[in-house]
Amino acid sequence: MANAPKRSGRRPGSPDTREEILAAARDVFAADGFERGSLRRIAAAAGVDPALIHHYFGTKDRLFLAAVEAPFDPADLVPTVFGPGVEGVGERLVRTFIGIWDSPGGNRAAAFLRSAINHRTMSTLVEQFVINHIIKNAVRHLDVPVDHVETRGSMIASQLLGLALTRNLMGFRALRAMDADALAVMYGPTIQRYLTADPAELGLPHDA
Amino acid sequence: MANAPKRSGRRPGSPDTREEILAAARDVFAADGFERGSLRRIAAAAGVDPALIHHYFGTKDRLFLAAVEAPFDPADLVPTVFGPGVEGVGERLVRTFIGIWDSPGGNRAAAFLRSAINHRTMSTLVEQFVINHIIKNAVRHLDVPVDHVETRGSMIASQLLGLALTRNLMGFRALRAMDADALAVMYGPTIQRYLTADPAELGLPHDA
Repeated sequence: MANAPKRSGRRPGSPDTREEILAAARDVFAADGFERGSLRRIAAAAGVDPALIHHYFGTKDRLFLAAVEAPFDPADLVPTVFGPGVEGVGERLVRTFIGIWDSPGGNRAAAFLRSAINHRTMSTLVEQFVINHIIKNAVRHLDVPVDHVETRGSMIASQLLGLALTRNLMGFRALRAMDADALAVMYGPTIQRYLTADPAELGLPHDA
Repeated sequence: MANAPKRSGRRPGSPDTREEILAAARDVFAADGFERGSLRRIAAAAGVDPALIHHYFGTKDRLFLAAVEAPFDPADLVPTVFGPGVEGVGERLVRTFIGIWDSPGGNRAAAFLRSAINHRTMSTLVEQFVINHIIKNAVRHLDVPVDHVETRGSMIASQLLGLALTRNLMGFRALRAMDADALAVMYGPTIQRYLTADPAELGLPHDA
């Protein structure tokens, strides 16, 4: 805490305070991870009182989502995608994911992905966002236990972000021609396998 | 041809001529596609004689690869990956693809992908590179016919580029921990399905 990077010392309550806190949060979460990154350290880095972070953002969770500029609140996905259980979860995840990209909020999703690609700090935050806020949270709501959560979550992210990359950022013609329902049929079984295949089938050890 | 965009009129043979031709080639291939983009039109846009393009680059194919700054020559992949036939082609493609990223040439691959993400012209060229130079060329060497080549090729690209994106550009920890052989086991069946699944299983019409 003592050696937290001190940002330029703006007064608490100045219009830039919120941005100062977000910038400090990005630094601290990227360096320490979401679990270990403390509000105290973020407050120290931003030069504000921890109470002010609560005032602006409420929970640590909401501070993280604001810092990473999440294009959606992953908590909103859980009931629809994971609530109905493991059967068909791959198709539902693809359909919901593409639904976000094809909605008016799709521009925010594109900005989010571009930023994750071009800025190292954001890459790390997006990895934490995907693993902790989406996958770990989601599998708790499934009706079956899931092993190797970080590896499976990263595999799922590699396909979903790759689909957004080629279809929505790069504009691959054949993928642009497909809507969320068509893509759910094509990609759903991939996501289903990454989430539920026996570890041995993925070449993963059984004991982890 | 008459309305080809004319670039600043450098003299043929000046040190910048090669770069002028490459810039003109990017514009023309992005606008017209690889098949229809003609060397005549590129020569006109660069303000040089078409013979000079042959002098610098040999074939249209090699001009395209230079324009797109391809991190490898796809012709080199074909014997190893597609030559042995359709069985196991998914695993071989993943292993070879990751081998490029993990080689000393991996930096060029990263620059190639970043450029494809951030520049619209390059996105279009990379799409053409993947579909025409890798996939269409590759399936000709397989021992079975392949339908829906553009769609299947785009699906394969969405997974392979998504893997490079999350593992190599964004640095997802769980994926960085895996080498080419481990990733081939994990991702090979995905690529195999995209390339060989019955069209109905992918929700594609049977007649295309």
